[in-house]
Amino acid sequence: MALRVVGVEAIEAVASPALVVEVVRCALIAHAAGRTVVPSPMHLEFAEAGGDCHVKAGWVEGAEDFVVKIASGFYGNGRVGLSTNHGVLCVSSARTGEVRAILDAGGRLTAWRTAAAGALASAALCRRDASTVGVFGAGEQARLQVAWLARLRPVGRVLVHGRDGARAAEACAWLGEQGLDAGVATGPEAAGADIVLTTTPASAPVLEAAWIGPGTHVTAVGADMPHKNELPPALLARAAIIATDDHGQCLAHGDFGWAVRAGAVAEDSDVPLGEVLRAGRAERPDAAITVADLTGVGALDAALASRVVAELSG
Amino acid sequence: MALRVVGVEAIEAVASPALVVEVVRCALIAHAAGRTVVPSPMHLEFAEAGGDCHVKAGWVEGAEDFVVKIASGFYGNGRVGLSTNHGVLCVSSARTGEVRAILDAGGRLTAWRTAAAGALASAALCRRDASTVGVFGAGEQARLQVAWLARLRPVGRVLVHGRDGARAAEACAWLGEQGLDAGVATGPEAAGADIVLTTTPASAPVLEAAWIGPGTHVTAVGADMPHKNELPPALLARAAIIATDDHGQCLAHGDFGWAVRAGAVAEDSDVPLGEVLRAGRAERPDAAITVADLTGVGALDAALASRVVAELSG
Repeated sequence: MALRVVGVEAIEAVASPALVVEVVRCALIAHAAGRTVVPSPMHLEFAEAGGDCHVKAGWVEGAEDFVVKIASGFYGNGRVGLSTNHGVLCVSSARTGEVRAILDAGGRLTAWRTAAAGALASAALCRRDASTVGVFGAGEQARLQVAWLARLRPVGRVLVHGRDGARAAEACAWLGEQGLDAGVATGPEAAGADIVLTTTPASAPVLEAAWIGPGTHVTAVGADMPHKNELPPALLARAAIIATDDHGQCLAHGDFGWAVRAGAVAEDSDVPLGEVLRAGRAERPDAAITVADLTGVGALDAALASRVVAELSG
Repeated sequence: MALRVVGVEAIEAVASPALVVEVVRCALIAHAAGRTVVPSPMHLEFAEAGGDCHVKAGWVEGAEDFVVKIASGFYGNGRVGLSTNHGVLCVSSARTGEVRAILDAGGRLTAWRTAAAGALASAALCRRDASTVGVFGAGEQARLQVAWLARLRPVGRVLVHGRDGARAAEACAWLGEQGLDAGVATGPEAAGADIVLTTTPASAPVLEAAWIGPGTHVTAVGADMPHKNELPPALLARAAIIATDDHGQCLAHGDFGWAVRAGAVAEDSDVPLGEVLRAGRAERPDAAITVADLTGVGALDAALASRVVAELSG
C-alpha cells in the first residue's frame, strides 16, 4: 500500500481557522491536565549551513493518532530563492503504529497552531476592555497573531514595530487588507498598546520593562530554543500572571526560563495556559500586567495533524 | 513539487548487503571519531495498545543529508494480521532543510543496519579461529546476524536457542537455505559456541555468565530501551574488551549500563566499536572473553538512508 502524502492545498481545504483554534484550545487544556504524551524535542544544528531542525512528537491520550513533526529552518535559503522552513508531519496510528499519512504542510500547520495558541492566550489574559494591539516583528507570525486574535475579540488600532521599516509597512498593508487599522510604530509606541505581541527570533529582549504600563497583556511566541529571548526578566517580575504552554519547555527555552535564571521570578510562578482556557478567561485586576510565554508544544501539532487526517478521511 | 516516497522494493534494489556493511562500517568509524551529530532519541509509550515508538535522528558531518527515523513496534499487531514494525525515514538536505525523500522501508533498513553492525562487531572481536556460532532468539535479527556474519568470515556449526522450539527450528531451516549448518540447541549449548549472539527483546539476562567459556565473543543487539537486558553484569565483569556502538546510549539503555549500575564494570571500561573497526580488528588474547553491546545509533540510519537516496538519484 502506497504511503499517503497530503499537500498544503488539501490541508488548507480542511483546516479552517475556526477548526484550528478549537483543536488547539482542546489540546492546550488536555496538556495542562496531564492528558498528553510529549517527549523532549530533538534539535540538530547545522552551523556551517546556518540551519537547524527541531523534531517534536506528541499524543493526546486516547487519540487515534500520534504525530512526529520534523521542522527545519535554514536562514540563508532566501538567497537562493528557497523558503526558509521545510519539513513534514508523520501521522501514525496509536493502536498499530501504521503510518496513516505524511503531511507535507510547508510549515503551515506550525504557523497556524502558533497563531491559534497566541490568539487564545491573548484573548483569555487581556483586560476585557483592551483594544489597541502592539506587535514586535513583521513576519508571518506578526500578521497571523493579530489577524487570528481579531477573530476571537474586537481589535482596535494595531501598531507594528519591525527592525526593517519597509517590512513593517508591508505587514500593515496586509493587516489593512484583513480590515484592520494598522500603522508602523516605534518600539515604545507598540509597547504602549493594551495587548503586546512579540513574534521575533531575537536572542535579547525586544522591549524594555519600563515601556509596559499597568493593564497590559504581553504574549511572546518567538522563543523556541535556549538562546532565544524576547522579554526582559524585569517585565515578568512585574506580572500578576505568567501563563506558559508547557512549564518544563518554557523553563528550558522560553522567556520564563530567562526570568527564573535571572532570579526575577520563582520557578513555580507560572500557570498552565490550558488551565486558564479551561476556566474561560483569566481572573485579573484591570491594572495588572499579564504575560503568556509560548514555546510550541508537540501535543498541539499532534492534535492538529491528527484532526486534519480525520477530516480528510471523512 | 510532490514529495518523493521510496518503497521497500526500490530500497532493496540498491541496498545490497555489501553496500550496507560498508556504509555502516564507515558510519561507526565516523561516530567513534566524533564526526556525527546524534541527538538523544525520543520514545513514546502506548501502554494500553502495547506499543512504542522510537524517533532517532542523525547526521554524519559533511554529509549531504540528515535523517530522522520514526520506528514503532506494536506487539499485538500479529493478532490482527499486521506486522509489528512500522515507520518511515525522512531524508532532508543538510544544506537547505528540503525533504529529499521519505523512505517507507517497513523496518528493512533498521534490520539491515543492525545486522551489519552486529556482524562487523562479531567479526572484528572474535578469535581468529572462531567457528561455531550460538544464537539466542529465533526472529529476523537472529537469522540476519548469522547470515551477515557468514558474509564477513567463515561460520561453522550454528546453534539456535529460542523460547519457542518451533520458531527456532524455522530459523534453522532458513539458515540451512543460506547454506549454513544450523540446529536447535539448549541455552548452555548455544552459549558454548565461539561466537554468541543475543537478539531478543528480553528484560532479564538470557544466559548465565558461567555458561560462557574463555575465548568466546558475545554480541548483544537486543537492548534498545532502559528496561531491556540480555547479558548478566557478571559476564561483562569477565570481559577483556567491551565494545559499544555509542557510549552514552549503551550506558542509558544497553547491557553495558546494567553492568555499570550493578557495579560490575567501570563507567569508562568500554571502547567505541568504531575505533576497533578503524584498526581492522581487536587485539585480543585467544583466552579472553569479549563483548559488543549495540543499541542502534541514529548516525547509522542517517548514513544508510542518505546513501540509498544518493544511489536512487545516481
